[in-house]
Amino acid sequence: MHEGIKNKELLLANISSAFSLTDKEIEELISLFAERKIKRRGFILHQGDVCRHFTFVISGCLKMYAIDPSGKEFNLEFAAENEWISDLNSFYAEKPTTVYIEAMEPSVILQIARPDLIHLYSNYPKFNSTFRIIIERKYMELQNRVLQNISATAEERYSNFLHQFPTLASRLPNTQIASYLGITSEFLSKIRKDLAHKR
Amino acid sequence: MHEGIKNKELLLANISSAFSLTDKEIEELISLFAERKIKRRGFILHQGDVCRHFTFVISGCLKMYAIDPSGKEFNLEFAAENEWISDLNSFYAEKPTTVYIEAMEPSVILQIARPDLIHLYSNYPKFNSTFRIIIERKYMELQNRVLQNISATAEERYSNFLHQFPTLASRLPNTQIASYLGITSEFLSKIRKDLAHKR
Repeated sequence: MHEGIKNKELLLANISSAFSLTDKEIEELISLFAERKIKRRGFILHQGDVCRHFTFVISGCLKMYAIDPSGKEFNLEFAAENEWISDLNSFYAEKPTTVYIEAMEPSVILQIARPDLIHLYSNYPKFNSTFRIIIERKYMELQNRVLQNISATAEERYSNFLHQFPTLASRLPNTQIASYLGITSEFLSKIRKDLAHKR
Repeated sequence: MHEGIKNKELLLANISSAFSLTDKEIEELISLFAERKIKRRGFILHQGDVCRHFTFVISGCLKMYAIDPSGKEFNLEFAAENEWISDLNSFYAEKPTTVYIEAMEPSVILQIARPDLIHLYSNYPKFNSTFRIIIERKYMELQNRVLQNISATAEERYSNFLHQFPTLASRLPNTQIASYLGITSEFLSKIRKDLAHKR
């Protein structure tokens, strides 16, 4: 086994959960991901920049958000430990992004650059399977969010949030979760109180 | 080359746009897709059923939609010729879907069942790349829709719709496009009139 693997064990576990990797594949994968520490409120992507990395979260939590014309933030996605985050539109098309990716907690991330990911795809076909599955999961999460915004009540959306991110409810400020759910933080406080009463 | 390929040429062109396929891969792909004709207003997926197929549209147009608690339809996605449609959540998890997929025009589609797609993935690794790219495109479209709903005006959303589906504006009823854009059909008529005046 390759050196320097220690900090990348979570990545390996994530990638190889569906497919076992050979030593050569592990070595290549590990050599192409670079570790970064991000302070709370540090950015890994700014509106107008090109998204140059696919990011895996080792610890901490990041959010991807857009800002509407009135200046209001809208949280599209959270990624805590063992999750992936990237603006694929910007990443693949190499065009400026319309979103921000910001750390909500001090975070440790692993990043792979676009040419290195394409190198992996071309030379180690198995990674097409692993990244196909990663993207499928992201797609399903996003579709669920869209569907929930149509037909689920705010209470149901909060329940789903608790289910999807069991540890985040106690880690993130109310305002951030409310923005993700598309409600005011006052309304979220009310939902939380009601839930606490029921228990 | 394999027989019966004629009706599947569009599928082959779609799949092999990024990767060239061997004769063996083409033969296998073609043997696993079944052709179906769907009448206008015919369904290929009903809320509560399991989505058992990944569908490629040869001609015509299908819509995927959800119904909100008040009974209002919300169009999530259109798929016209040379596009893919499926409820991935239901398809991969084999659980009942919350959406409908309905033909808006008489349509010809090609479908592959889940076990056959998994067979392709396992035995012909190249298809992991092609379907990774297909899903990535779907993900980017969906994210663009979510972002547009946050920050684009109805006029901008309609312009993007015209750009993404150049032929659909004249094929689909106003009500369907309005439901996709999240506006009333009266408002869409106004946008269309304003655009016509500007030209």
